[in-house]
Amino acid sequence: MPTNRQFILSSRPKDLVTPEVLKLTESPIPTVAEGQALARVKYLSMDPTMRIWMADIPQYMPPVELGEVMRAFGLAEIVQSRHPDYKKGDKLMGLTGLQEYVLISGKEARAFQKLPSIPFLSDVNFLGTLGVTGLTAYFGLLEIGKPQSGETLVVSAAAGATGSIAGQIGKIQGCRVVGIAGSDEKCKWIQDELGFDAAINYKHPDWRAKLSAATPNGIDIDFENVGGEIMQAVLDRMNLHGRVVLCGLISGYTKQDPALASFGQVLIKRLRVEGFIILDYASNYVDAGKQLGMWKMMGKLKDKQTIVQGFEKAPEAINMLFQGANTGKLIVEL
Amino acid sequence: MPTNRQFILSSRPKDLVTPEVLKLTESPIPTVAEGQALARVKYLSMDPTMRIWMADIPQYMPPVELGEVMRAFGLAEIVQSRHPDYKKGDKLMGLTGLQEYVLISGKEARAFQKLPSIPFLSDVNFLGTLGVTGLTAYFGLLEIGKPQSGETLVVSAAAGATGSIAGQIGKIQGCRVVGIAGSDEKCKWIQDELGFDAAINYKHPDWRAKLSAATPNGIDIDFENVGGEIMQAVLDRMNLHGRVVLCGLISGYTKQDPALASFGQVLIKRLRVEGFIILDYASNYVDAGKQLGMWKMMGKLKDKQTIVQGFEKAPEAINMLFQGANTGKLIVEL
Repeated sequence: MPTNRQFILSSRPKDLVTPEVLKLTESPIPTVAEGQALARVKYLSMDPTMRIWMADIPQYMPPVELGEVMRAFGLAEIVQSRHPDYKKGDKLMGLTGLQEYVLISGKEARAFQKLPSIPFLSDVNFLGTLGVTGLTAYFGLLEIGKPQSGETLVVSAAAGATGSIAGQIGKIQGCRVVGIAGSDEKCKWIQDELGFDAAINYKHPDWRAKLSAATPNGIDIDFENVGGEIMQAVLDRMNLHGRVVLCGLISGYTKQDPALASFGQVLIKRLRVEGFIILDYASNYVDAGKQLGMWKMMGKLKDKQTIVQGFEKAPEAINMLFQGANTGKLIVEL
Repeated sequence: MPTNRQFILSSRPKDLVTPEVLKLTESPIPTVAEGQALARVKYLSMDPTMRIWMADIPQYMPPVELGEVMRAFGLAEIVQSRHPDYKKGDKLMGLTGLQEYVLISGKEARAFQKLPSIPFLSDVNFLGTLGVTGLTAYFGLLEIGKPQSGETLVVSAAAGATGSIAGQIGKIQGCRVVGIAGSDEKCKWIQDELGFDAAINYKHPDWRAKLSAATPNGIDIDFENVGGEIMQAVLDRMNLHGRVVLCGLISGYTKQDPALASFGQVLIKRLRVEGFIILDYASNYVDAGKQLGMWKMMGKLKDKQTIVQGFEKAPEAINMLFQGANTGKLIVEL
C-alpha cells in the first residue's frame, strides 16, 4: 500500500540541516472527502528562506512548528478530485510542504495557483523564472532598485535562481550589470550565457580589486542576496543616493551570528536600503508573470535548473544552497 | 595688535580630539579689500559631523586637509565691510571655520546667510532649532520618516540638538514618542519638559526591557543618531514596513571599527533605511525654517543650549559630543 512520505521538522538547526532536524516519516495517503482534492508533488522548490522558516525567530510568516511537515514551495498534479475547481491532471503551484502528496481542501485551495499551459514554457519554469524567484527578482529590482539606463547594478549570488534573473532584468533596463558568484564556472555562465557585463568570483583573493575595476563609475544599485563582507564591499563602492535591494542575507542564515555590516556608508552616501518580500506585491503577480513570460519566450531571460533526483534527497538539497552547490534554480524532482 | 586665532587640523584623530589634532595658531586679521567683508565669529556650532570631516574617508564633503583651518558652522557679525551686500552689524550664519575672524569675499559670500531679525528668537536659536540641527530633524523625520498620527517613533541621542527637535516634531505629528538618552537628567528633561511619552536611559542595565515596555505596539519609525547596539535594540522592535531615518551613527565616529549592526531585521521586517543630509533639501530650507520658527514661537518646540565659554575650549567641546556631556545644542561662545 502506497504511503505519503514527509519530512517533519524535529529540531531547530544550528547550522546546516541534519537528519535530526528533518526526520523522514511515512503516513497514509490522505482520503479525499467531498470538496477536497489530492495532488501528487512532482517538483519541490529549494529556497534559502526555508532555513529561516526552520528557525524560531520573528519572521514574515510564522516559523514552522516542531512536529509539523516542513514548509516548502512545490508543483503538484491532481490525482484525485472531489473539489469543483480541480480535475485530474491539473497542475498546481503553492506551498505543498516537503511531502509526496498534499490534500487540498477549501482553505488550502486559495494558497494554490493553477498552472496555465503556455507553449515553450516547461513546468520547472513556473518554480523559477516565472515563479517565486522570478517574481522576487522582478519586484525587487524594478520597484525598489528603480534602475535607470546607464546605471551600474551589482548582483550578489548572481548565479542563483533570483540573482541570475535580477541581473538579466537589469540588462533589459539598460544597466551595466556586474555579478558576484562563488566559482569561475558560475562566472562564465552569467557572463557568457546571460550577458552580464562582468562577473567576479569572490573566492579569488583579489576579488575586491576586480569589483572596483568592473565598476569604474561606482555602483548605483545593489541587488543584495548575501550580506556580510560581500555586501560591505559593494556598499563601499556605492554612489550617492544608491539603492540597496535587500533580497537576502544568505551568508548569515546558517550561523548563530548574523552577518554584520556597517551602516556607515548608508549614512554617508545617503543610500536607501529596503527589505522586501514578494508577498507585498501580490496584487501585481499576474502582470509581472506575463512580462516575465514574454521576456522568457523572446529569449531575453535565460535560466538553468540544478535538479536533484529523489524526494529523500531534499534535506541535502537545502544544504546545497548554503554551500554554493547550485547554479540557477535548485529543484528536487520526485 | 589683535590677531585671528585659528584651530588648524594638524593630524587625523584616532579617537578623541587631542592637541596634536587641532593646533591653536595665530595669524594677522585679514585685510579687507574692495568687495570683501570681515566678520567676527560670535558662536561656533559643535556638531558630531566635525569628527567625520577630520577623517580621511570618503564623505559628503571633502575631508578637511591637513594644515587647513578646521571646518565649523558658526554665527558671525560683520565688523568691517567693503562688500555691497553687507554692512557693519549684519549677522551671518555659515561655515565660518574654527577661527575668530572670517573674511567674506565674492565666492564665500554665497555660503553665508544673513540672519533675519525675528522677535522672541535669540541668535543661538539660529544655530540650533532654526539652524542645521533643526532642519536636519525636520527633513529627516518628515521626508524620510513620514510619521502618521498614532505611530510609535523612537529617537536615539534624544537629548541632543537634533534628537530633541525630532522628537518634538514627532509629537506635533501625533506620534507616540520614546527617547533614548544617556542620563536620568536628560531623560527627565525630554519627558517632563519636551513632552516625550517615555524616555529610556541606556546606561541602566535593564534598558532593553524598558524599551520594550515603552513601545507596546512596536516601533514604526527609528530616528537613528547612534548606531551599534542601541540601533540594534531598536531594529529588533521595528514593525513591518518601518522606516529608519539614518541621521547619525555617533557611537562609531571615534572608533576605528565602525558601529556594526545586522541587516537581518531590515530584510525580515521589510524596513526602509535611508541615509540623508540636509544639503539634499536645500531648495526647501526657507519653508522649513518658517515652519520651525512658527512652532518655536508657539511654544511647541522647546530647546536648550549647552554653552562653552572661550574659543580655546573648542577642541574639548567637540569631545563633549562623544562623551554625552551636552544637553541640547552644544555651542562655543567666543
